[in-house]
Amino acid sequence: MRPIKRLIQLNDALNLSLEAVRPVSRTEKIDIIDSPGRVAAEDVVSSLSVPPFSRSAMDGYAVRAKDTFGASKLRPVRLKVIEAVYAGSVPRASVVKGRCSEIATGAMLPKGVDAVVMVENTEKEGDWIFVTEAAHPGQHVSEKGEDIAPGVKIVSKGELLNPSKAGALAAIGRARVKVYARPKVAVIPTGNEIAELGRELEPGQVYNINSYTLPGVITANGGEALVSKIVDDSLEDLEAVVREYRDCDMLVFSGGSSVGERDIMLDVLERNGRVVFHGIAVKPGKPTLFGTIGSQLVFGMPGYPTACLSNAYVLLAPVLRAMARLPKREPQTVQARMGRRVASTTGRTQFLTVRLEDGIAHPAFKESGAITSMAFADGYVVIPADVDLIEKDEPVVVHLL
Amino acid sequence: MRPIKRLIQLNDALNLSLEAVRPVSRTEKIDIIDSPGRVAAEDVVSSLSVPPFSRSAMDGYAVRAKDTFGASKLRPVRLKVIEAVYAGSVPRASVVKGRCSEIATGAMLPKGVDAVVMVENTEKEGDWIFVTEAAHPGQHVSEKGEDIAPGVKIVSKGELLNPSKAGALAAIGRARVKVYARPKVAVIPTGNEIAELGRELEPGQVYNINSYTLPGVITANGGEALVSKIVDDSLEDLEAVVREYRDCDMLVFSGGSSVGERDIMLDVLERNGRVVFHGIAVKPGKPTLFGTIGSQLVFGMPGYPTACLSNAYVLLAPVLRAMARLPKREPQTVQARMGRRVASTTGRTQFLTVRLEDGIAHPAFKESGAITSMAFADGYVVIPADVDLIEKDEPVVVHLL
Repeated sequence: MRPIKRLIQLNDALNLSLEAVRPVSRTEKIDIIDSPGRVAAEDVVSSLSVPPFSRSAMDGYAVRAKDTFGASKLRPVRLKVIEAVYAGSVPRASVVKGRCSEIATGAMLPKGVDAVVMVENTEKEGDWIFVTEAAHPGQHVSEKGEDIAPGVKIVSKGELLNPSKAGALAAIGRARVKVYARPKVAVIPTGNEIAELGRELEPGQVYNINSYTLPGVITANGGEALVSKIVDDSLEDLEAVVREYRDCDMLVFSGGSSVGERDIMLDVLERNGRVVFHGIAVKPGKPTLFGTIGSQLVFGMPGYPTACLSNAYVLLAPVLRAMARLPKREPQTVQARMGRRVASTTGRTQFLTVRLEDGIAHPAFKESGAITSMAFADGYVVIPADVDLIEKDEPVVVHLL
Repeated sequence: MRPIKRLIQLNDALNLSLEAVRPVSRTEKIDIIDSPGRVAAEDVVSSLSVPPFSRSAMDGYAVRAKDTFGASKLRPVRLKVIEAVYAGSVPRASVVKGRCSEIATGAMLPKGVDAVVMVENTEKEGDWIFVTEAAHPGQHVSEKGEDIAPGVKIVSKGELLNPSKAGALAAIGRARVKVYARPKVAVIPTGNEIAELGRELEPGQVYNINSYTLPGVITANGGEALVSKIVDDSLEDLEAVVREYRDCDMLVFSGGSSVGERDIMLDVLERNGRVVFHGIAVKPGKPTLFGTIGSQLVFGMPGYPTACLSNAYVLLAPVLRAMARLPKREPQTVQARMGRRVASTTGRTQFLTVRLEDGIAHPAFKESGAITSMAFADGYVVIPADVDLIEKDEPVVVHLL
């Protein structure tokens, strides 16, 4: 048995992992409808004007503004309606003095006009309207190119896309956009005690949990999860699976990074790459291994499901986001009061899972092997390494799961 | 032209829309790996014990606690190691007085033991160990069923699933779970002026934007977006598309809900269903129509892209979440100071889009027809209907996009 001798602080572990990140450089072209949440890998510059023509911003009448000067409810100005212009159609007539065209929102302005009077400020009588409010030039008119002029950059390389940016790409007729590929993350469960779902458990076995918790975290943080079959804790099998997933950007092993005699993961990393750290001063999640194999990042997560998932949230997620070029995610937190006195004298940063009830945080943590430590919790309280005690009713910040 | 006569306040519009919601009742069975973000449609009760056997929570030695009573660094207790038990294997020997078994984390406890001593608190010499710290009964032991006992409810009907709940389902061997189906939302762009991407624009036409902004909001709020081809503003074509999407839970039209002569959407809703409201006191987004056709909810969104998308965020998203049985989403906000004086004298709630720069919110709003009002913004400031002015440097809350 090789005990983990030197634990490093969580912040150091996070910084060392982030330093090892090489943001993904592969790109792909995708339909803009699928672009929200993806990161642009190109600058997109408009080559056309949006709108492509000057148009009405209101339903009403396209007028020469000066024809309406002085108009009021008491002294309406009378104009002759010469045509109705609908959105999508092209005005046939030019508007000259004393005339106007009925116009719909979004419709092209006729020649000769420079303003639109809202329908609410008119009264109609046959082919004539009475304008009851003066219009100023440019009123309710969207000029050609006012939204997007030719040469304007719509999207910048490295920018996170969202629905409105997809809309701006659509506005200039771009149906596809180049984005960075999602980092490929292999999820590799190890351990002879792990059984796949759908099989009967043999004595000494437990079901595979980590292959079902990790992909959710990976997907939510910009990665693509590829789940391996369960791998035995042997050097040969572990090196074979490393070769199998050599195209992945990240390998996440679970199990096999504790101090048992059969913990071969450390050997695999030492033989094939580089160990960056082994052991973090956190609870749960201490026996965590991190290193690199070529350009791949490799996490050896504890096999115990709450330890594995907790580390996925606090360590893997930010590292993956950096790799995927996604911005940091602000944690969602709520204020609460601790439901009972909690001692935390391990000298490690503790992630204490809690259930929330009427603003009270009730500890939900059983042990790192119990998935219900997390599945029956609403969030967790971070207890710093140098804090030994939280009193009942003490205010705490709960990070929501 | 039929002007919108009575605008209702946004809150009333939201409440009326929420009242019309019938949460989706269709269910489907999915793989638990895909369950995060979905809503359970069944109670899941465990029929087995997790762990299925009492196991070690640490790497160390399985002992009879009373054999170690009184042990200390100065007076270590000597025990004979009779076997090594690995995770996944079954202990062969029972442990009797003066003996112990080496044991790995997660391995089944041998008969006769009631505690585990961490490897760190032992010294090894040949087949013997010296225990340097007394163990109490139950120490570092996870009892059978301690995580999940038979009869415990793992997941409750109506509960939002997440990675740890998927893990709890895996722990009891459940590979699939019944969830509520995602509401199906038809996105139906209307208007003769709208051109599909990939085609040359004809005079008077603009590209279809709303079909590329709405799906992102729909997907992010638990819906499944089905995008229709562009439909002409005719009663016949609109009624045909209503029939085509009769299996959808929600129809979202864009365009055709303003006051132009060709606004037929109101007729379609009156002929086939019920109008709930027409016109909201918001800017942008005033000409918004809402009603029902049978059990379907129908939104008639303004055709102008920023008005359409703004309403999708503030109205469609919460309504869709209720339909999908998802919890309300708390808005992500930041504090900022307004970059210049802003007047808002419309008497409507205004969503003023802003760019954020060093804590200053610079107005980014051009007009509701300009998609860059939103695409070039980081968020928006809500200006209540009864506020006419925000001064430069006034503190504001920015809702992030």
